[in-house]
Amino acid sequence: MASKLAAECIFCKIIRGDIPSVKLLETETTFAFLDVGPLSDGHALVIPKYHAEKLHQLPDEYLADTLPVAKKIAAALNADNYNILQNNGRLAHQEVPHVHFHVIPKPSAEEGLTIGWPAKKANVDKLKELASKLKL
Amino acid sequence: MASKLAAECIFCKIIRGDIPSVKLLETETTFAFLDVGPLSDGHALVIPKYHAEKLHQLPDEYLADTLPVAKKIAAALNADNYNILQNNGRLAHQEVPHVHFHVIPKPSAEEGLTIGWPAKKANVDKLKELASKLKL
Repeated sequence: MASKLAAECIFCKIIRGDIPSVKLLETETTFAFLDVGPLSDGHALVIPKYHAEKLHQLPDEYLADTLPVAKKIAAALNADNYNILQNNGRLAHQEVPHVHFHVIPKPSAEEGLTIGWPAKKANVDKLKELASKLKL
Repeated sequence: MASKLAAECIFCKIIRGDIPSVKLLETETTFAFLDVGPLSDGHALVIPKYHAEKLHQLPDEYLADTLPVAKKIAAALNADNYNILQNNGRLAHQEVPHVHFHVIPKPSAEEGLTIGWPAKKANVDKLKELASKLKL
């Protein structure tokens, strides 16, 4: 499968080797390396070898391998607690406009990802109405 | 592919239909439904039809379909900003001990996932040392 990379994207440059990175592993469709601004030791990034800003813009064939690669890294890191996170859009905390999955060990309350969870209780009838409107 | 479910797990019960849910879509290996305690409208859960508590315990064949399903939901929700999140372990905010991926629209600063990002600057030599020790 041919990779589809962009000329000016920092992650595409890392995939091509034009910018150095501490690589962890690589498959036909996926590249993984250590984050240089880690939230905790072992914080890794898993990226598809296809330039797209957001998850829903990626072809499925570039998504089949992502989680098996993230899983291998999580297993090798041997972390009891960890988060997998992928942010889409500035408001959702995305900083580089090339889809990337964070694998973030959570060794203590102070290190790793901090999560705020402002949950509401849903009305089930409203959920059903929403589901019926989605084109899936 | 046969699903492997646990008797007493709430998400396994949802997959089997023993507990009702607002289902979005289902494939041979994956089940998706709306979260009843949403962080924002459209907050969905994508779960493998295999009972495992953490990502690294899942067989790869149950992971190939997860992101294509999450992607379909994200596209149908038509959100400009959204997060994909999967938590492993209590310290990492996991509440149900069956692997689940959150698809969480982020329509405003107040709604959706809130993220704390206590990043450090890494020493590249230390990253290389860590990478060399991982069995990948």
